Amino acid sequence: MEWEKNVRRADPYVPGEQPKRTDVIKLNTNECPYPPAPAVRRAAEELDYDRLRLYPDTEAGQLADALCANYGISREQLFIGVGSDDVLAMAFQTFFNSDKPILFPDVTYSFYDVWAELFRIPYVRKPLDEAFRIVKEDYMEENGGIVIPNPNAPTGILEEVGVMEEIIAANPGSVVIIDEAYVDFGGESCQRLTEKYENLLVVQTFSKSRAMAGMRIGFAIGNPKLIGYLKDVKFAFNSYTMSLPAIWLGAESVKDREYFQGTVNKIIQTREWVKKNLTELGFTFPDSKANFIFASHDRVPAKAIFEELKKRNVYVRFWDKPRIGNYLRITIGTDEQMEILTENLREIIAQWGKPT
Amino acid sequence: MEWEKNVRRADPYVPGEQPKRTDVIKLNTNECPYPPAPAVRRAAEELDYDRLRLYPDTEAGQLADALCANYGISREQLFIGVGSDDVLAMAFQTFFNSDKPILFPDVTYSFYDVWAELFRIPYVRKPLDEAFRIVKEDYMEENGGIVIPNPNAPTGILEEVGVMEEIIAANPGSVVIIDEAYVDFGGESCQRLTEKYENLLVVQTFSKSRAMAGMRIGFAIGNPKLIGYLKDVKFAFNSYTMSLPAIWLGAESVKDREYFQGTVNKIIQTREWVKKNLTELGFTFPDSKANFIFASHDRVPAKAIFEELKKRNVYVRFWDKPRIGNYLRITIGTDEQMEILTENLREIIAQWGKPT
Repeated sequence: MEWEKNVRRADPYVPGEQPKRTDVIKLNTNECPYPPAPAVRRAAEELDYDRLRLYPDTEAGQLADALCANYGISREQLFIGVGSDDVLAMAFQTFFNSDKPILFPDVTYSFYDVWAELFRIPYVRKPLDEAFRIVKEDYMEENGGIVIPNPNAPTGILEEVGVMEEIIAANPGSVVIIDEAYVDFGGESCQRLTEKYENLLVVQTFSKSRAMAGMRIGFAIGNPKLIGYLKDVKFAFNSYTMSLPAIWLGAESVKDREYFQGTVNKIIQTREWVKKNLTELGFTFPDSKANFIFASHDRVPAKAIFEELKKRNVYVRFWDKPRIGNYLRITIGTDEQMEILTENLREIIAQWGKPT
Repeated sequence: MEWEKNVRRADPYVPGEQPKRTDVIKLNTNECPYPPAPAVRRAAEELDYDRLRLYPDTEAGQLADALCANYGISREQLFIGVGSDDVLAMAFQTFFNSDKPILFPDVTYSFYDVWAELFRIPYVRKPLDEAFRIVKEDYMEENGGIVIPNPNAPTGILEEVGVMEEIIAANPGSVVIIDEAYVDFGGESCQRLTEKYENLLVVQTFSKSRAMAGMRIGFAIGNPKLIGYLKDVKFAFNSYTMSLPAIWLGAESVKDREYFQGTVNKIIQTREWVKKNLTELGFTFPDSKANFIFASHDRVPAKAIFEELKKRNVYVRFWDKPRIGNYLRITIGTDEQMEILTENLREIIAQWGKPT
């Protein structure tokens, strides 16, 4: 039809499967296997239902204050959005507004090129080295912006803050976004560098370490000038993005630091013994500092393992893509879930190649 | 700083004031004075807190199904977003993608030009006539898209579906967005026309008639092809926009049709007696079919009334703008709130011009 000529065509991002069945062991979208902080439950039970008729605070006040207290920052250094995807999409739209290409790794979060296409931002993918490491010199040429996840996904590899600082310092003419979705699982945040570098935006999420993927909360920390530009674009898009329950329950989650640290520690401990088991089973993987492991088997193709696990109701993530087509991204679940995974992997590998 | 040269500059929308004090009579942002449906409270109390750790259904399943059942449509005809602002912003980005200007009224929802500026969409404001009515012929010239609220805001004037159909039929080359934020308060929706016209998108919200401004839910109805394009852009922006509480509580709200109709009827009844009182006090106003009245006094300037009401803790909306600078937009509250408003207006008008 005639009206279609003016339509913006987009290639949507394809997220990991969300099975309707509840008997599945779900290790495919990096969710937390433990529930949110108990204070979140209390806040849900005491939800002021009558107030839902009113618009929320545009600044997400209580949530903002809890985050500011937790990270030792002021409201002017904080931006909040509907998950880190919302924060990152807004940041792309606000800061990557040049004719020069933005730069990001070839193996990385697969939303970056989707946003670049949507907003018509030119981009260049910089290949990771053989060991899936970022080559810092690649990010020191002329560019219209940089986005790097640290730890990187789906590799799980953490780079030192010093490496990130070299990249940030080399790019005073561009905004550098460090996507720290997984930093709480053993990484050091670049947050302190935002005091020193105006061009740095650090993005985090409640969906992984805070066990609130269903609540849709993400945030960014940066200097007040940078955050101001981001807020202007956000308030030109949608004044009220954060629902009252997100503000109330999110704030409670941040205040319970002990529960947060306990959850994160449990996941780290599980991850470390899973690494040993995977090595014994013949898997190799980069040393992950995230809540997942990106593993490849020396004999059995990733695709075969992925499909066989699925038949057994264990979901992991697999991409049929260049460079990573023989890898599985396995989310760290509870100890019990990971024992079931290990048992299934042991059987699948033992049976591989044998007549059925 | 050097990085600032590539920043997208935006002029944010300024929403009505959200006072922190709770003793205020808040008639300034068109919220519903009654709470959401009782089933929403039950859903909040029984919120499955543990599930918050999981990502929501990208299609907002339960909420989508409740809306489909209510409006007699299929999921392919429905788009859901974070308030109608999110839906409209996505629709602007998806459908208004031409070099020709989009068209909307000069007196209308003040977010339209904000989105046009943000997305660099050329636009022309078409003046309403002397009586604040839409001149349909204005929307029959060459354009890159059309957006019209019906009833219009802040005038409250409803146009017949037949007028809208003439505009839609005259524009097979453009997408026509009818913003029906206020249609439940006595208007007829253009929804049935989406079966006939591929280029029509009808947008509604939970923030007014469904008393859930704090939950952030809006939706659009259109033919599957149109909705498909919109979903592609949305899924290229943020896969998971609707939180689990929004999905669960929103669905319950839609199912309780009786409560919904009761709330709407109460507001309509209040509106009609407030009209009589305002006329007696010397106000004139277009005949509103929304949950607000756009009124001007024959003797006392709107700005003076606005400021005096605020001193008395009664908040209404006032814009210091051409054509509407002598008008107040007054949200319909409870009978009790509107009696207090009327009393205050009576006093302010009686005292005007007298020595203090």
